[in-house]
Amino acid sequence: MKIAIQDTYPDDVAHCYGCGRLNPEGHQIKTFLEGERTVTRFTPKPFHTAVPGFTYGGLIASLIDCHATGSAAIFKLLSEGKTVGSVPAPRFVTAHLEVDYLKPTPLAPLVLFGRALEVKERKVVVATELYAEEALTAKGHAVLVLMPETMRKG
Amino acid sequence: MKIAIQDTYPDDVAHCYGCGRLNPEGHQIKTFLEGERTVTRFTPKPFHTAVPGFTYGGLIASLIDCHATGSAAIFKLLSEGKTVGSVPAPRFVTAHLEVDYLKPTPLAPLVLFGRALEVKERKVVVATELYAEEALTAKGHAVLVLMPETMRKG
Repeated sequence: MKIAIQDTYPDDVAHCYGCGRLNPEGHQIKTFLEGERTVTRFTPKPFHTAVPGFTYGGLIASLIDCHATGSAAIFKLLSEGKTVGSVPAPRFVTAHLEVDYLKPTPLAPLVLFGRALEVKERKVVVATELYAEEALTAKGHAVLVLMPETMRKG
Repeated sequence: MKIAIQDTYPDDVAHCYGCGRLNPEGHQIKTFLEGERTVTRFTPKPFHTAVPGFTYGGLIASLIDCHATGSAAIFKLLSEGKTVGSVPAPRFVTAHLEVDYLKPTPLAPLVLFGRALEVKERKVVVATELYAEEALTAKGHAVLVLMPETMRKG
């Protein structure tokens, strides 16, 4: 069975509102490796609207953000010859995020695909495509860096 | 008394999760003109964490997004010689959003300042600075365009 990268984050850094398994109020998104790309699926709540019928752009940015940090961890593991679940995941944070809203995103189940543009020792660059009802509606470009120790209080 | 731009959005486009006054589940952020800049204040909830003690990056992107769309409406009104509250606000949506996370943002009251980089007939560009505990922790750059009629179902 596939393991979500977020389920392998160390406990002290698993409280993210977007993807932390230890944040009961949050979105708890899950990102998986499927073939050579990463995949996150998420269904917005009825109130996650921009205007009625369409998904809120801030949620789209949030999903791309957490999908990209999870993807960075996956691609980093792969670059080291490791598999998801074999070790605690490296925890990345976002240094730079860009979102292109190509067209309005219907309020419908969403799927995000990620690929690595660059994998270095402490930095990963991830490109994301977000689809709704089989249409590409947003693109993301994120620069992720390993979380600074000053953020870890555990 | 100052009027928030979001309180002057037409009813059919006032359901945004970030800033819609008609979305009881949402953040309901309010953006004001103060001098020549726009200002939004928001206090994250205890569960809006990235890791314990720090604000979730997706929330920061969301706040910058809604602050920028509200700011675009304000700057557009000003460019036409109008004041906030004198007419229904023009409704902008985000075409492109960039966020630079300069340093970890503490989980504390946040204030965002906006200024117009460009104001055209259907497009406004807004630069945002986000402060927490008097430190500049994130910067935003957003390109906003007038909402397409296809998004308005009212």
